Amino acid sequence: MVKESLQSMYEQAKEWVLEAGGQLRESIKTDVLVEYKTSVADLVTEKDREIESFFVSRISRAYPAHHILGEEGINKQKLSDPKQGWVWIIDPIDGTTNFVHQKQNFCISVALYEQGEPRLGFIYDPIAGELFHALAGQGAFMNEEPLPRLTETRVEEAVIGINSLWLTPNKHFDFKPIQALVREVRGTRSVGAAALEMAYVACGRLDAYLSLRLSPWDFAAGLVIAQEVGAVTSTVHNQPVEVFEKSSVLVARPGLHQVITDTYLHSSSPRR
Amino acid sequence: MVKESLQSMYEQAKEWVLEAGGQLRESIKTDVLVEYKTSVADLVTEKDREIESFFVSRISRAYPAHHILGEEGINKQKLSDPKQGWVWIIDPIDGTTNFVHQKQNFCISVALYEQGEPRLGFIYDPIAGELFHALAGQGAFMNEEPLPRLTETRVEEAVIGINSLWLTPNKHFDFKPIQALVREVRGTRSVGAAALEMAYVACGRLDAYLSLRLSPWDFAAGLVIAQEVGAVTSTVHNQPVEVFEKSSVLVARPGLHQVITDTYLHSSSPRR
Repeated sequence: MVKESLQSMYEQAKEWVLEAGGQLRESIKTDVLVEYKTSVADLVTEKDREIESFFVSRISRAYPAHHILGEEGINKQKLSDPKQGWVWIIDPIDGTTNFVHQKQNFCISVALYEQGEPRLGFIYDPIAGELFHALAGQGAFMNEEPLPRLTETRVEEAVIGINSLWLTPNKHFDFKPIQALVREVRGTRSVGAAALEMAYVACGRLDAYLSLRLSPWDFAAGLVIAQEVGAVTSTVHNQPVEVFEKSSVLVARPGLHQVITDTYLHSSSPRR
Repeated sequence: MVKESLQSMYEQAKEWVLEAGGQLRESIKTDVLVEYKTSVADLVTEKDREIESFFVSRISRAYPAHHILGEEGINKQKLSDPKQGWVWIIDPIDGTTNFVHQKQNFCISVALYEQGEPRLGFIYDPIAGELFHALAGQGAFMNEEPLPRLTETRVEEAVIGINSLWLTPNKHFDFKPIQALVREVRGTRSVGAAALEMAYVACGRLDAYLSLRLSPWDFAAGLVIAQEVGAVTSTVHNQPVEVFEKSSVLVARPGLHQVITDTYLHSSSPRR
């Protein structure tokens, strides 16, 4: 695949994301239908499905050989080895609880990987009108503005995104080192939409973001965008994130990432 | 003081708040000067002082007999008994860390109390363009929209605002009951600006907000606005909030407030 084609995919996907975001923005004005999936904390809306269908139909028509990985599991059967070929990883609404409860602070997350390598990333908050996007190797942008390379910062000056849940007993990681981290930083925030929080690290609103359990569609686009501005990305055990598996994620400014993993997170041994 | 005068104070203060917010919105485009106060987590900016001066000069000119209570301590010496007379309680920038780090998610908080009773409340997010306001007894508004009375909700369906810090060992409250609460709710969020989070309870974006240690200027306006839509307000020990003292605060939908205090927070004995 020549570079020109990737550039045209970038432009095309950007249009799709903006169009889908426009649909979500419109739907906010009407009531949303809600049904429960695996738990009450996991809301899926009618709109979630519509937006996924929108992307599936567009991608299938334009790139019939490409695979699609999404929360609803579409096309999973074709993905015997996701590290072969082109794979789109889509979350039609990241932050569905916010979508229902707040009618803001949600986003569309779309990524494209080729042979397991990041190529494109889009995170679009249609209410704030903020599209974060990147083509690997060309830097990241918020709308038309290039995002500057991230500089280093100290733990005491850092504002980190983290869900309070990770400060309670859980099967993924000991909460005590995380308590220690939370006490040392300047502040913590929680938006409730992983992709958006990764985009906020990329644009400097947060200095780090940490989650113990995410799915590919939560972080695939965020990894592309964050890496383009020099953010360091890993699991909380400082291992590379396997983009097609469920994973913990730590995204942080350079320097800060190392201090967090060395000083705070090393004391907990890896668990599944 | 006749009712008509209170109405005119309401209109006048609303204009001041909008004007001050406009100044903050403009200043976001320029760099802000930062200095440290009591800790690195407590940023005070040049703008913080300018906005406080703005309110002090306006209030002093229009209502020379009124008192003013603010973070910078202006006029405190006049306040031998704050439950006498008229007292304005002002936070020129609630969420100074967000102001510096994010250039969004901060607000101006202004309240007016008469003989210790709530009269007016304003919480203005100049970036989102959202002014939450209330005159006691006349309901609360977001911009021109009346906010509906809050309905009840269950813990499992609740999204609550809470800072991760309260899930770490601290001198104000045992963190374990709070861990239990966090595990039961649908989700937690943290904006990093107490007044704004109280306004979000009033407009239904959050179902509850809880903080273990706040100052009068953090919660004075929020109490007025939240109470006008039927939110239940108390300390975390289910005692009335003393508006002129540092206090913990729990603001929640009716029903939910009782379950949180009865089931989760009762197990911790009061501490200073």
